[in-house]
Amino acid sequence: MSHRGFASDNYAGVHPDVLAAVADANVGHASSYGYDDVTQAAVDRFREVLGQPVEVYLVFNGTAANVIGLDPLRRPWESVICTDVAHINTDECAAPERHLGSKLFGVRTTDGKLTPDLVRTAHAEGIVADEHRSRPRVVSITQATELGTVYTPDEVRAIADATHELGMYLHMDGARISNAAVALGLELREVTTDCDVDVMSFGGTKNGLMAAEAVVFFHPDLAVDGKYIRKQQMQLASKMRFISAQFLALLSDDLWRHNATRANAMARRLADGVRDVPGVRIVHPVQANSIFAVIPEPAVGPLQEEFHFYRGFQTATDCRWMCSWDTTVEDVDRFVAAIAKVVPQSM
Amino acid sequence: MSHRGFASDNYAGVHPDVLAAVADANVGHASSYGYDDVTQAAVDRFREVLGQPVEVYLVFNGTAANVIGLDPLRRPWESVICTDVAHINTDECAAPERHLGSKLFGVRTTDGKLTPDLVRTAHAEGIVADEHRSRPRVVSITQATELGTVYTPDEVRAIADATHELGMYLHMDGARISNAAVALGLELREVTTDCDVDVMSFGGTKNGLMAAEAVVFFHPDLAVDGKYIRKQQMQLASKMRFISAQFLALLSDDLWRHNATRANAMARRLADGVRDVPGVRIVHPVQANSIFAVIPEPAVGPLQEEFHFYRGFQTATDCRWMCSWDTTVEDVDRFVAAIAKVVPQSM
Amino acid sequence: MSHRGFASDNYAGVHPDVLAAVADANVGHASSYGYDDVTQAAVDRFREVLGQPVEVYLVFNGTAANVIGLDPLRRPWESVICTDVAHINTDECAAPERHLGSKLFGVRTTDGKLTPDLVRTAHAEGIVADEHRSRPRVVSITQATELGTVYTPDEVRAIADATHELGMYLHMDGARISNAAVALGLELREVTTDCDVDVMSFGGTKNGLMAAEAVVFFHPDLAVDGKYIRKQQMQLASKMRFISAQFLALLSDDLWRHNATRANAMARRLADGVRDVPGVRIVHPVQANSIFAVIPEPAVGPLQEEFHFYRGFQTATDCRWMCSWDTTVEDVDRFVAAIAKVVPQSM
Amino acid sequence: MSHRGFASDNYAGVHPDVLAAVADANVGHASSYGYDDVTQAAVDRFREVLGQPVEVYLVFNGTAANVIGLDPLRRPWESVICTDVAHINTDECAAPERHLGSKLFGVRTTDGKLTPDLVRTAHAEGIVADEHRSRPRVVSITQATELGTVYTPDEVRAIADATHELGMYLHMDGARISNAAVALGLELREVTTDCDVDVMSFGGTKNGLMAAEAVVFFHPDLAVDGKYIRKQQMQLASKMRFISAQFLALLSDDLWRHNATRANAMARRLADGVRDVPGVRIVHPVQANSIFAVIPEPAVGPLQEEFHFYRGFQTATDCRWMCSWDTTVEDVDRFVAAIAKVVPQSM
Repeated sequence: MSHRGFASDNYAGVHPDVLAAVADANVGHASSYGYDDVTQAAVDRFREVLGQPVEVYLVFNGTAANVIGLDPLRRPWESVICTDVAHINTDECAAPERHLGSKLFGVRTTDGKLTPDLVRTAHAEGIVADEHRSRPRVVSITQATELGTVYTPDEVRAIADATHELGMYLHMDGARISNAAVALGLELREVTTDCDVDVMSFGGTKNGLMAAEAVVFFHPDLAVDGKYIRKQQMQLASKMRFISAQFLALLSDDLWRHNATRANAMARRLADGVRDVPGVRIVHPVQANSIFAVIPEPAVGPLQEEFHFYRGFQTATDCRWMCSWDTTVEDVDRFVAAIAKVVPQSM
Repeated sequence: MSHRGFASDNYAGVHPDVLAAVADANVGHASSYGYDDVTQAAVDRFREVLGQPVEVYLVFNGTAANVIGLDPLRRPWESVICTDVAHINTDECAAPERHLGSKLFGVRTTDGKLTPDLVRTAHAEGIVADEHRSRPRVVSITQATELGTVYTPDEVRAIADATHELGMYLHMDGARISNAAVALGLELREVTTDCDVDVMSFGGTKNGLMAAEAVVFFHPDLAVDGKYIRKQQMQLASKMRFISAQFLALLSDDLWRHNATRANAMARRLADGVRDVPGVRIVHPVQANSIFAVIPEPAVGPLQEEFHFYRGFQTATDCRWMCSWDTTVEDVDRFVAAIAKVVPQSM
Repeated sequence: MSHRGFASDNYAGVHPDVLAAVADANVGHASSYGYDDVTQAAVDRFREVLGQPVEVYLVFNGTAANVIGLDPLRRPWESVICTDVAHINTDECAAPERHLGSKLFGVRTTDGKLTPDLVRTAHAEGIVADEHRSRPRVVSITQATELGTVYTPDEVRAIADATHELGMYLHMDGARISNAAVALGLELREVTTDCDVDVMSFGGTKNGLMAAEAVVFFHPDLAVDGKYIRKQQMQLASKMRFISAQFLALLSDDLWRHNATRANAMARRLADGVRDVPGVRIVHPVQANSIFAVIPEPAVGPLQEEFHFYRGFQTATDCRWMCSWDTTVEDVDRFVAAIAKVVPQSM
Repeated sequence: MSHRGFASDNYAGVHPDVLAAVADANVGHASSYGYDDVTQAAVDRFREVLGQPVEVYLVFNGTAANVIGLDPLRRPWESVICTDVAHINTDECAAPERHLGSKLFGVRTTDGKLTPDLVRTAHAEGIVADEHRSRPRVVSITQATELGTVYTPDEVRAIADATHELGMYLHMDGARISNAAVALGLELREVTTDCDVDVMSFGGTKNGLMAAEAVVFFHPDLAVDGKYIRKQQMQLASKMRFISAQFLALLSDDLWRHNATRANAMARRLADGVRDVPGVRIVHPVQANSIFAVIPEPAVGPLQEEFHFYRGFQTATDCRWMCSWDTTVEDVDRFVAAIAKVVPQSM
């Protein structure tokens, strides 16, 4: 089971502090479905961290977090503008379409990042044909992006402004929001609340939790039906305290920062280590914890035999190398050494 | 009300023979919901025309015909490959997404036509990520296409072969199937049944009917739940005989051919008339009853004041000029004269 | 085809005035999708008849009218309270569930009519379990009911009051609203607008139209997305003028009243004719155009051979006899004579 | 947080062995999304326990388990027959309707148990009106039932036979399947596989797990798209090993039996303790771990102040007292004493 590699930040386990928090929550009886003290504490902690009375709904996984966050923002005849590589567009098996009935407009980008201009153009195309076309209503951006790039707060705010001017909402898929904040050297609040995001999926699992994500509504009026939505969308945990305990741990003692810092640093170390290896071409800026690289075809197989990683995620030729909260210097250095050995030989 | 123009083949009225057939059906009582003699006669006529025991379900409009035809071919976790300009993708207000729960993959093309290679590539992209990505299950092509081009039978057959080899079904949006058949000089059977299409939306309204489309299943096993699907999809007419009478008229005395021949001929006449006008650039082959042209910006407004037509359907700059079953030589010649006068002046 | 009977008011054809109106609309070109003069005239006529600036969306059939009217009133996690014999609950093949994602709560009644108390009880049961249960949001009543009974305006108003006090909307399935108005000797406005109904399906097809129903929103704010909803729900007619012309005819020269008066009168004549026949038991008050009766089992088959009618609609033993706008005195008298002959013999 | 009571078996925590198993699984990296060794071991264990090569999909919670199990069994135009108190019908916020598009037919029962005759009647009512009515396709029973009763294997087999004869599938909501098996003194296989159930939700959370349920397909052909369904239904855990570890623990060393035995025994002790208290009326046979009782109105409040429990679950007057895997003899005896003191005084 323990084949270390660079396939996904989901391959890592649970941070020990998180597991301890789960065990600590296992005392006696507690009200189910989130009406317990641990959950209240977790929600309070979210409010402290994000700096305003946000509404928070804890759920099991990221696909659900995205669907539940998008649900109250649009009706089925309204669409969601995102990038063509957005996780909601490519890797959620059409869950958004099935559960929302809405269309996603995947806009082409080079770096996985929308811009105000791209938003305006997509909006204009969406409304040109009246009711014949699904009306754009939400813009969804991913932070850090699926290509390992990171929006600056100014970039997000500019998108938020354009989005709101057009009468739309801004949704953020923050599956790796901690990695983004660390990359920018900012607090979580500074990359979310302060950027005028309306709703966010706050990622936990990829940053050291077991199975916990949070839907954060920055405006309470968007969340009035949140409990019903979470329940109907099949994401209400009966023994909620064990989900809440995970987040309470993540948001305590800067664990979120600690874990993301490690993952990002290891990605940087890996990128730095292979950047000058002949035959390796890094294709996107390495700003969070993933590296996209193109290497000669003959090198792929031998490397994958030693280290698990994926190819073809976004294009047929890209290799994706992910670092996680538990990636070690030794892991990286062994991989760098392997790349430095295999790739040049394969050219 | 009677502003003649080139906006859409939906602006035309109902062919007199069709109206007469509707009136003729209005005698006494008849079983409702399609259990009447006129409906049986219409279905029989479809079977004669298409050359095999097809299953036919009459419905009210084209969006519904497409959704009902696609419904039994896929489950929500399976996707539909089409072009990015496919009517199901751009002009049905996300009805397919809402009612099917499936994702549409809109493939970029230059002429609105899929090819076996495009199908194979889209299929490969769809299955690369296992259950994380919606699995391609249907290929949908439009005949004649939304850009006024027409597939040859060989082209359709090649797509059908590629589609079937990959374990998928071939759906045809035949909103203008009569125009396509006439353009190719072929019988309806030759451009549908003989091309190994699995399911087709057979267009009636744009070709002189009042409000009638047909979903044709070329393999009865695909249609076993057809009645339930049509009902649940809200397209079961209680007084079905009046829908059926329209199709019975269209498929009698070659009315389908007569109407489409006129529409196509007028489009050709229009294209020929303006092709050499300085400033007019026709951007797609004119093979059916629509013309896509780019003209200088200042010419658009003045022309639209005289003749209704749309711009920006597929790109922001294209003008679309549609001819219909009732477009006259005088209509065309007046429009050609106007273009010849206005466009060169505007350059 | 012309087997006259008492199976359904859908077996009747189209009133000649309606057909004439359709033919009259067939002149030249007209803007499609409802942007034409006939449609504007029809909407204006609705506003005159219903006495306030209602928003009207014409559609093809009754199932769709109900779904489209309900769509903006609730979200998927909110439910619709109706009777257990409501057409939306029993005879629309779960179209409401599929297209709305909402649950219907079918309340048992003896006469097909909800009451304020039944509404309050169903609402209380719906909200008792918080987000675990779908939250009641709409009450839907049918006028005239599926059992041939009719609500008085006071009864509807009382339901409306109870509904609104609980923060819900009142929807009326008015598939036979004309029959109800005639039964009550009232104007259409008096049985709809004046009763504080929020949204209504206004039935046309059963009262002499070909295929036309209307969704009427009595408060414009409920209709802001009406065009998008109708389109996405696959009910936007391209050649809308031919739908509109039907309604324009129905609402002109009191045709709606003329047709419903005939149907109701024939039902009363039929009921009066058989009421005292030994073995015939009429099980609901005959207030509109349908009669529910129980007759001895051996009489059913012989009667059905002569006159088409259904049994088992609401209970396994009920016969349903429907009269329509074109039912004649001779039709009724022949049927009465047959019943009077067959039933007593069968006892 | 630790207010012990009788509100729900969801108020209990996680069995220590389960928590230990989760911690044990937290070693190094593992493939995500279920392609790991712990998951394989859990699936293998299911196959050993259930006695045939069942297909098993682990998910987060019970609502999702039910929806995912039902998904491949029916299309949206096909309905599910269940009892009116079925959890899927009353306590899942219309998740089945939204995610399946199918109608549920809630059949009235006195004890929460369907019978072959009830199944046949409901099926007959469902198909009487052809495509106008949703076609019954699945029968869903709950074991143990929502009223605390238990089906014998013969009863389940008889339902299975009737169901299959009518061309339908048998689904079992086994949220408390362990309690049922223990109540019957049988192995898990004997109450599932051997009873010809087609698909089951195998409950874990209520029986001592943290958040884990399993969808078990007894026939592999029903599960061919299971991975896609679980993903699209938003229930694919990225770090699956931690879900799997829970079930591996539950199915090892008879932990499932141990936990359910305790819960059932405590319910029996409670029922025996209060049965003869004047004013207490137990309204359903106490066969698993829940007791439904009616007590005088004035006694309810005082008792609820001391011990958390729910009233009004199935009827407005029923109290529901649930025992769980961690209910102690002291818990029960204190509650019995309180009832014996409070209830007689309140009469």
